[in-house]
Amino acid sequence: MKLTILGCYAATPRTITNPTSQVLEMGGQMFLIDAGEGTQVQLRRHKLKFQRINHIFISHLHGDHFYGLIGLISTYMLLNRTSDLHIYGPKGIKEVTLLQLRLSNSYSGYKLFFHEQTSKESRVVFEDDKVIVRTIPLDHRVYTNGYLFETKPGDRKLRIGAIEDLGIDRCYYQKIKSGGNITLDDGTVVDNKDITYDPEPTESYAFCSDTYYSEAIVPIIKDVDVLYHESTFLDSEEHYTERTKHCTAKQAASIAKLANAKTLILGHYSTRYNDITLFKKEAETVFSGKILNADDGKVFDL
Amino acid sequence: MKLTILGCYAATPRTITNPTSQVLEMGGQMFLIDAGEGTQVQLRRHKLKFQRINHIFISHLHGDHFYGLIGLISTYMLLNRTSDLHIYGPKGIKEVTLLQLRLSNSYSGYKLFFHEQTSKESRVVFEDDKVIVRTIPLDHRVYTNGYLFETKPGDRKLRIGAIEDLGIDRCYYQKIKSGGNITLDDGTVVDNKDITYDPEPTESYAFCSDTYYSEAIVPIIKDVDVLYHESTFLDSEEHYTERTKHCTAKQAASIAKLANAKTLILGHYSTRYNDITLFKKEAETVFSGKILNADDGKVFDL
Repeated sequence: MKLTILGCYAATPRTITNPTSQVLEMGGQMFLIDAGEGTQVQLRRHKLKFQRINHIFISHLHGDHFYGLIGLISTYMLLNRTSDLHIYGPKGIKEVTLLQLRLSNSYSGYKLFFHEQTSKESRVVFEDDKVIVRTIPLDHRVYTNGYLFETKPGDRKLRIGAIEDLGIDRCYYQKIKSGGNITLDDGTVVDNKDITYDPEPTESYAFCSDTYYSEAIVPIIKDVDVLYHESTFLDSEEHYTERTKHCTAKQAASIAKLANAKTLILGHYSTRYNDITLFKKEAETVFSGKILNADDGKVFDL
Repeated sequence: MKLTILGCYAATPRTITNPTSQVLEMGGQMFLIDAGEGTQVQLRRHKLKFQRINHIFISHLHGDHFYGLIGLISTYMLLNRTSDLHIYGPKGIKEVTLLQLRLSNSYSGYKLFFHEQTSKESRVVFEDDKVIVRTIPLDHRVYTNGYLFETKPGDRKLRIGAIEDLGIDRCYYQKIKSGGNITLDDGTVVDNKDITYDPEPTESYAFCSDTYYSEAIVPIIKDVDVLYHESTFLDSEEHYTERTKHCTAKQAASIAKLANAKTLILGHYSTRYNDITLFKKEAETVFSGKILNADDGKVFDL
């Protein structure tokens, strides 16, 4: 999987920083997660083929996470997009999007599908043959969900040499890929493990922003490969977290540790800080796994 | 008056061009005209003290003219603005703005006033002691107004030497500034012109974008000092103007000529063109006054 950070700073867009938006490439899909103002320009700047995006996941309806959505939808119209576009987000996102399109007298040549969320429990919101996406209910000032993206286990891989040596017919290949044992004509049972390799390992990515410190999410994201967790503040501003419903870098690290994440990516930094490496330094005092600093334009091959 | 072009390109924002937005400084006010996506970043980039903006004029509700409004309103909240903000635009702008604020559970510490327009006639929408602003009904795919900004004539200026020589008391000064004649104790009538200079000349600026070619606007903008008129197309694409309800550079020049404008500023260029000086060249074949090419970041001291 590959993650491109289009923006990872809190609150207002500035000349040097962008609000939250990121592109996750997984299982052949290009998923857009959040869309702060300027997202379409960031997609262009980083030369992403954004016509490939068919599914957009919005965490919550604060401006720095979704004011760029309507512009992207409009631009797709101008570019004569024809393929369906699915939008996942809190209830209200359909009303506000359609109102804006109606006021501008715009009609798209493509279909827009809204998948509005209201549940406070984790729900599957997207599934195809390779990827499954669930919500991660977060604790913020408005209704907010993170999203857990997981690839499904693929087929087992055939050891062609061994299979041919045993004279197994091609018509059994799908059964073998699915993990089944084979009985030969002489009655010998061939164990699946002797004629296959393990499938590609599954991958998982959890996006958790914006949120107050919440251990309730740990069971949902347990053993995740990569956790993007907001860290708006450093420890010295921990007293702001309760009112603003955000986290410190140490709190993000604590969630990563409890969830047994392999990698933690920090982001959603308050623009009061000039040196984002401090977030990583503070997180390292809590979490011993791999820690990465998100930054606008960074691409992570995970 | 001073005009800063934040963006002057049609349709979608790109890495190198911005949609419509401009700042007009006139009569001590800083007016924002239109607010395409990215306007707040452009205001920062060009180091404009945007807390000084108290009046925002939106021409129409196409995204490239107003998708940046909500972000600016939100940023003013985060910056703890307290002064009133007035927004002028087509009916619907209040509903969509308040819906977005409601969905993000945002409350401002300042008051928002909406002045929604529905009239197809020119109307005065703003007036203070120095400036008056009227709508210019335009012909576009949705309800659209341009705006005419005019300074009011100031007081006549006192010729102090002449006034003192005649022994005229200070209590008459306001009468003299207002253009009144003075009768001296001996009955002599002093003509106002002998004891004053002309006031500062008035200034006027007309913003006309987006619009199809419309001579109906000429009486409203007659003798305007500076006309910003959209010129989306060159002559070779004139066949697109009817469907899209836009103009060519020559058509913009024709309006400038009919209106006897002193200066024409061209903008709202289609992004299909790489050389914007071609717009000026074509306009020069029609209009003999001063012609300027708008471009993102350009500042005109007018």
